[in-house]
Amino acid sequence: MSNASGYFVSFEGGDGVGKSTHVRLLGRWLGEVTGREVVTTREPGGTALGAQLRQAVLHGEDMDPRAEALLYAADRAHHVATVVRPALERGAVVVTDRYLDSSVAYQSGGRELSEDEVEGLSLWATEGLLPDVTVLLDLDPEVAARRLSGAPDRLERAGSDFHERTRDVFLRRAAADPGRWLIVDASPSIDDIQAQIRVDLAARLDLTPVVDEAVRSAGEVQA
Amino acid sequence: MSNASGYFVSFEGGDGVGKSTHVRLLGRWLGEVTGREVVTTREPGGTALGAQLRQAVLHGEDMDPRAEALLYAADRAHHVATVVRPALERGAVVVTDRYLDSSVAYQSGGRELSEDEVEGLSLWATEGLLPDVTVLLDLDPEVAARRLSGAPDRLERAGSDFHERTRDVFLRRAAADPGRWLIVDASPSIDDIQAQIRVDLAARLDLTPVVDEAVRSAGEVQA
Repeated sequence: MSNASGYFVSFEGGDGVGKSTHVRLLGRWLGEVTGREVVTTREPGGTALGAQLRQAVLHGEDMDPRAEALLYAADRAHHVATVVRPALERGAVVVTDRYLDSSVAYQSGGRELSEDEVEGLSLWATEGLLPDVTVLLDLDPEVAARRLSGAPDRLERAGSDFHERTRDVFLRRAAADPGRWLIVDASPSIDDIQAQIRVDLAARLDLTPVVDEAVRSAGEVQA
Repeated sequence: MSNASGYFVSFEGGDGVGKSTHVRLLGRWLGEVTGREVVTTREPGGTALGAQLRQAVLHGEDMDPRAEALLYAADRAHHVATVVRPALERGAVVVTDRYLDSSVAYQSGGRELSEDEVEGLSLWATEGLLPDVTVLLDLDPEVAARRLSGAPDRLERAGSDFHERTRDVFLRRAAADPGRWLIVDASPSIDDIQAQIRVDLAARLDLTPVVDEAVRSAGEVQA
């Protein structure tokens, strides 16, 4: 069967850069142009178990850094095993709001854990599954903070130094692996950003429409 | 300060061998003979977060083996960081119902995960904290099954081959590290088993009563 293996796209960046909006818009467009099933999802919280863990991590008691890193890795393992990998095996496009790189950016950099340790944990959790393309929505954390509304969660309450540092980690990782990453300036309008993402993505992935095997077989029988 | 560092004792063995009873009896006795603070606890579920995770793992949806191993490791990291290590630093005796060896016995041995992977994850989670003594309560799984009452949880519902295999893993680990493990036959009466544990433990640990610094200082002032 042609086109049996799907595409895996992740969005990364700080809070307030527009990830969830662009996951939704890009997912809809990819479904239209390729004719593929589209699964849009997020981490943490993309499964029922994940939603419990997201609650525990973001709104629960203060946590040891290793416990926190292991919980995110558990969420990722479950999410990949039950949602992402089955969808890719069906030939779907999977677009996720955050993945492994968020763990590296947010959970390393304190005194406790190195980037290599956090990345190694996620690669073990997912049996090495990396996105085909990772879109970094890059924005000054102060601009992003002004876009946010509602009650801040625990990560959002961390100081601006923290947000500057995570931005630096994303930019450094993107520069080190340009074959996987797209860096997109997230300061223009939503329409302009989305247009840029589509142009860049079309240059990376084969977006030829999938031929539906069932329809084609039916056609051959009738001919 | 003398006796500043406490003792860490874990109990291991299958379901129904009497771990929780002997944790309680041994903890009380250790407090009496040493004059130390005693913390009895368990995994999973020894913290508020752990209780949520225990619920998710034992009674929730079926889970990917890596996700399950990571959740147990997260519980252990949090338990060690917030309960076990602070107690040991206060000079307390900590007695836990299950620890790292349960993860190795229960989560490896399927096709997916090796003993080394599961043990490595726990050692990373705990920064290498191993018990001073691990008591293996060893019992034929069929005898243990007849002792159990109430609704079986997910692990207990697994077949008898599974329980035979985990028993073998415990016995093999104990044989490989006799300096840490005590193997105790769990088929006699509770009193006989507890007496055996006390004799064996007294040969391993210095159970001399702690001199209370505050009391001694007060005594010196009065003298």
